[in-house]
Amino acid sequence: MVVRVAVAGASGYAGGELLRLLSAHPGVEVGALTAHSNAGQTLGALQPHLVPLADRVLQETTVEVLSGHDVVFLALPHGQSAAVAEQLGDEALVIDMGADFRLESAADWEKFYGSAHAGTWPYGLPELPGARPGLAGAKRIAVPGCYPTAVSLALFPAYGAGLAEPDAVITAASGTSGAGKAPKPHLLGSEVMGSMSPYGVGGGHRHTPEMIQNLSAVAGRPVTVSFTPTLAPMARGILATCSARALPGTTAADVRTAYEKAFADEPFVHLLPAGQWPATASVYGSNAAQVQVALDEAAGRIIAISAIDNLTKGTAGGAVQSMNIALGLPEGTGLSAIGVAP
Amino acid sequence: MVVRVAVAGASGYAGGELLRLLSAHPGVEVGALTAHSNAGQTLGALQPHLVPLADRVLQETTVEVLSGHDVVFLALPHGQSAAVAEQLGDEALVIDMGADFRLESAADWEKFYGSAHAGTWPYGLPELPGARPGLAGAKRIAVPGCYPTAVSLALFPAYGAGLAEPDAVITAASGTSGAGKAPKPHLLGSEVMGSMSPYGVGGGHRHTPEMIQNLSAVAGRPVTVSFTPTLAPMARGILATCSARALPGTTAADVRTAYEKAFADEPFVHLLPAGQWPATASVYGSNAAQVQVALDEAAGRIIAISAIDNLTKGTAGGAVQSMNIALGLPEGTGLSAIGVAP
Amino acid sequence: MVVRVAVAGASGYAGGELLRLLSAHPGVEVGALTAHSNAGQTLGALQPHLVPLADRVLQETTVEVLSGHDVVFLALPHGQSAAVAEQLGDEALVIDMGADFRLESAADWEKFYGSAHAGTWPYGLPELPGARPGLAGAKRIAVPGCYPTAVSLALFPAYGAGLAEPDAVITAASGTSGAGKAPKPHLLGSEVMGSMSPYGVGGGHRHTPEMIQNLSAVAGRPVTVSFTPTLAPMARGILATCSARALPGTTAADVRTAYEKAFADEPFVHLLPAGQWPATASVYGSNAAQVQVALDEAAGRIIAISAIDNLTKGTAGGAVQSMNIALGLPEGTGLSAIGVAP
Amino acid sequence: MVVRVAVAGASGYAGGELLRLLSAHPGVEVGALTAHSNAGQTLGALQPHLVPLADRVLQETTVEVLSGHDVVFLALPHGQSAAVAEQLGDEALVIDMGADFRLESAADWEKFYGSAHAGTWPYGLPELPGARPGLAGAKRIAVPGCYPTAVSLALFPAYGAGLAEPDAVITAASGTSGAGKAPKPHLLGSEVMGSMSPYGVGGGHRHTPEMIQNLSAVAGRPVTVSFTPTLAPMARGILATCSARALPGTTAADVRTAYEKAFADEPFVHLLPAGQWPATASVYGSNAAQVQVALDEAAGRIIAISAIDNLTKGTAGGAVQSMNIALGLPEGTGLSAIGVAP
Repeated sequence: MVVRVAVAGASGYAGGELLRLLSAHPGVEVGALTAHSNAGQTLGALQPHLVPLADRVLQETTVEVLSGHDVVFLALPHGQSAAVAEQLGDEALVIDMGADFRLESAADWEKFYGSAHAGTWPYGLPELPGARPGLAGAKRIAVPGCYPTAVSLALFPAYGAGLAEPDAVITAASGTSGAGKAPKPHLLGSEVMGSMSPYGVGGGHRHTPEMIQNLSAVAGRPVTVSFTPTLAPMARGILATCSARALPGTTAADVRTAYEKAFADEPFVHLLPAGQWPATASVYGSNAAQVQVALDEAAGRIIAISAIDNLTKGTAGGAVQSMNIALGLPEGTGLSAIGVAP
Repeated sequence: MVVRVAVAGASGYAGGELLRLLSAHPGVEVGALTAHSNAGQTLGALQPHLVPLADRVLQETTVEVLSGHDVVFLALPHGQSAAVAEQLGDEALVIDMGADFRLESAADWEKFYGSAHAGTWPYGLPELPGARPGLAGAKRIAVPGCYPTAVSLALFPAYGAGLAEPDAVITAASGTSGAGKAPKPHLLGSEVMGSMSPYGVGGGHRHTPEMIQNLSAVAGRPVTVSFTPTLAPMARGILATCSARALPGTTAADVRTAYEKAFADEPFVHLLPAGQWPATASVYGSNAAQVQVALDEAAGRIIAISAIDNLTKGTAGGAVQSMNIALGLPEGTGLSAIGVAP
Repeated sequence: MVVRVAVAGASGYAGGELLRLLSAHPGVEVGALTAHSNAGQTLGALQPHLVPLADRVLQETTVEVLSGHDVVFLALPHGQSAAVAEQLGDEALVIDMGADFRLESAADWEKFYGSAHAGTWPYGLPELPGARPGLAGAKRIAVPGCYPTAVSLALFPAYGAGLAEPDAVITAASGTSGAGKAPKPHLLGSEVMGSMSPYGVGGGHRHTPEMIQNLSAVAGRPVTVSFTPTLAPMARGILATCSARALPGTTAADVRTAYEKAFADEPFVHLLPAGQWPATASVYGSNAAQVQVALDEAAGRIIAISAIDNLTKGTAGGAVQSMNIALGLPEGTGLSAIGVAP
Repeated sequence: MVVRVAVAGASGYAGGELLRLLSAHPGVEVGALTAHSNAGQTLGALQPHLVPLADRVLQETTVEVLSGHDVVFLALPHGQSAAVAEQLGDEALVIDMGADFRLESAADWEKFYGSAHAGTWPYGLPELPGARPGLAGAKRIAVPGCYPTAVSLALFPAYGAGLAEPDAVITAASGTSGAGKAPKPHLLGSEVMGSMSPYGVGGGHRHTPEMIQNLSAVAGRPVTVSFTPTLAPMARGILATCSARALPGTTAADVRTAYEKAFADEPFVHLLPAGQWPATASVYGSNAAQVQVALDEAAGRIIAISAIDNLTKGTAGGAVQSMNIALGLPEGTGLSAIGVAP
């Protein structure tokens, strides 16, 4: 069986990464590719690394163009996925790489995104407790945000095992591709090379409620999240440094055991040996996440750190992994757990 | 008056930065330059950017060579400064850029540095409450560590004003020059470019007790510190993201006011206008620190962020600033508050 | 005497670098700062590294605003300088950091810039043979392009000494700040980090006729130039690798001697010791140029390589150096020959 | 059929990249992995990105360990391959990723490598005219150097079509991984980030005779090569800017046609559409080469530019491609022509 796939939003970074992965997927045939302002151009002019697809011409994003595919990936601006998905009907698996269907709380959606809430789809983070059954056979999938992917993988074992206070403090460093391809002065190479800088400080980043939702669900009670994203001088990668006060009596062995259990059977999440810490370079271009955890006894805190590639495990790779589950394919089909390093 | 200055350890990054600054200092004449394994080589072979000093030959680090100078800067490995300083006598101002005389607690020194405690010298962070009087006329100065400089500037106003719980959580990203010039595999360009990675996680970094000492002194009670340093793909700069739970009743205005008061008269610390956040690029090569602070009301935390150049304000610039105070020169002589950007 | 200086185009990279240098110049007072689309904003919002000037408000670029200054620097788009300069009259020294008054050939100007030729002003590359007398006391100065600065310094000694065939082959790598601050997709950090790429290949770059003009003048006959610029993953710096066939009988000693003579008295051009090669990091943020040369006997070619900071020696530093000469100040006033390294 | 493969020198960058590619090769089983000073360590400690192989223990490089494999890759220091290869016998395909068997001229070998010449093996650059027949069924293959791969692909069409004078001028920028994993001060991240610098200038680089050999063979007469390598601030990639005077009467159409013919059927070499130029980011981690060419009529020169990943197409990818040919597998098995971008 060959799965015929369409990609809406093929000219951006998420779309480009998805096409890189789909080109290596043995069960997929790449069908229609659409764009908005770039419609009519060849993919080669916009994504020069996608050589085998260079002559493909981008089409307008219409239901006619997207119809007739087994899977449709949507890499559209926030708020545009619902209208497209409705018209596609249930015959196609629709995978939204935007934020539209991630949040359960309409109030949070409206506060952080400023438009009407579209609803909630099965959440495409297979490693999260309870997620896989909802993805198997699904016809709609909401791909998680890149930061929530990194943060949830780092912290859910601590909350799942009841080891941490519900007050998480997170600093994450992201490569610039997370900010997309639309040119803005602060994203110029001249500005970002040699510079670390924070943004969205103090609770304003849109991924915050998604982290709260994930961690609260695992903890079984409300978790607050202080989240500070920073822009790092690299194209790809997220390093999430997460901590929470350890509950009284928690030992280093308790912590280690919780993480070993959480990831024992996960093909793409690697709990590193003691003493080795994640590095974004190690997961560059791969669907792997590296995780490590420590108990700082003097400060009374659990420190959990994860590294992912924001475009792969954090977006397009997670999307393909979820697609595989939905279609009943082996979960790792077409995905690599080996980073491109050095 | 011309101040004659010697530099012990002129072949490393701290020594090189110090010589760059001293070359621009109108009241200084650069005297003896010493090194250990590089003695006998010209400075031009080791520090090719220091063109006007290229023909200077590095000498062995002996008391004879260092004697006869008004100021002696020590950029030596940990544990070697005391022996040199003792022999220099009190006629010279001795400024230790190493860690030997920073910590008041002998127990902390022994735990983190593994050797006998040498004592404590006046602490060269002029902006810290109460520091300047101890530096004026001093004959011995301990230059702070680069991370403690960044972290103390970010957090002391909150603790000084009694706004924060004594449980600080800090993640800092540092440029690779902070790790020095000795070649190690994990510091190769091939390894660090494109990668963010943590180290010393869980309370093990040697700068932790120095942060605790500074913040506890300002707070008037013991402050715990959870400190996670990360290595960023840039040569210079520290971005310190610091947070602590706000005490009940603290308002955003309280926080802003505390920081405005703390830095109102500081020539090198710039509290940014609301909405603008620090970036390490903005302080590249300068003695400036940029600070910004926010109150995250949902998470109940104060988030304070600072950016410095680890080699300038974090090491050599702070050393020159302290020297100026000790010698009675205008504090900013020979120092710039303008970064080399972009 | 304090020289009062205005800067037209203060929001761009060249304007920002100029202000950094002028702030350190002991004989200069910074007066009016103008911009186009950014008029009305504070400098702090646009150039966050220029802390001491952060509260300055950018004005519209009008003759009224620029009048009444001793020196006016123009950092305007191509073709706009002539109209402003005409109205300023001869009382002010006008220094054009754009291309408008560099080329003697109206035909070349029209071919490469597509507008009417404005004329030629004294050329602000003091090291070029014969340049200084034309700059002393000048009321108009055309600052060279960044690439022509690097290339001319690397090759004029060979052509001046009659050692090379008039067929120069040049590849230069430039930092991204050379492309300016206007956001374009190919200049995004995500695109440039980790990537080397050429542009303007095959003779199309606008700096080519300026190189030909300089080298032909020194050689005393027409020199052809094959120039390939490349974009390098760094914010600043130009490394120009230049070569030409050696004329028969040329020895390595002839070559070395020619370069030693050319730069013997130059404060900002450093011919490196044999065996040491230029690096852009060594001149970062400084007005220095590093030059080295070799004779490849097997290939029969002279290879001359220079490194400069494109924004400093290549633009704003060269402009200040020329201003100093025009005003009769010591040539190096306010300029450093020490790079910010590592 | 599963091909069992051993890798001698698995702890370095070339060995690591080879293992990344072999892990994705459907017909390969990774057998013994050996090292020298790192023998006894796990691969995970040395190559943290190779997660599925993390628990493999590196063995000593002995014939006993390497025997019993269908293919043995040698990633050893220069001069060590011959002794190992001799003892392995002809049953195994031995692929040398070092330089030992590349040069036909014993004199060149001795001059540039300083040891006795070991001989010449079939040269693993399949795209070079005449190369594939020598590789089919071969039991010994010499993998080309990374620079010669980039330069030969850029220039052989011009020489093969008789369009260029035999005097090639080449500047190439390389990522730092080309310099290997042994820590040296000038390769530290602090030194290379933000810096372009040349090395081996004037004919001294060991890859020069290999380029001369390749281009002379295609041209049918001796070609001189002036080669200047530069170190660029990126981990991977080579951008080779190559030029030669065009022979009289050569037109732009002649040049284009020659390159179109040369690469018409090549799966891994992409002659870009007119107006689009290679970028190393586009081939990051892939086995593809991008090539573009122009005729600069004013300067009378052909400018040909190629981009490759030095570790993939330039080393390990080229090795796997040649292995596939030797074993009769489809040439592109296990290799991707899509770069990891942005």
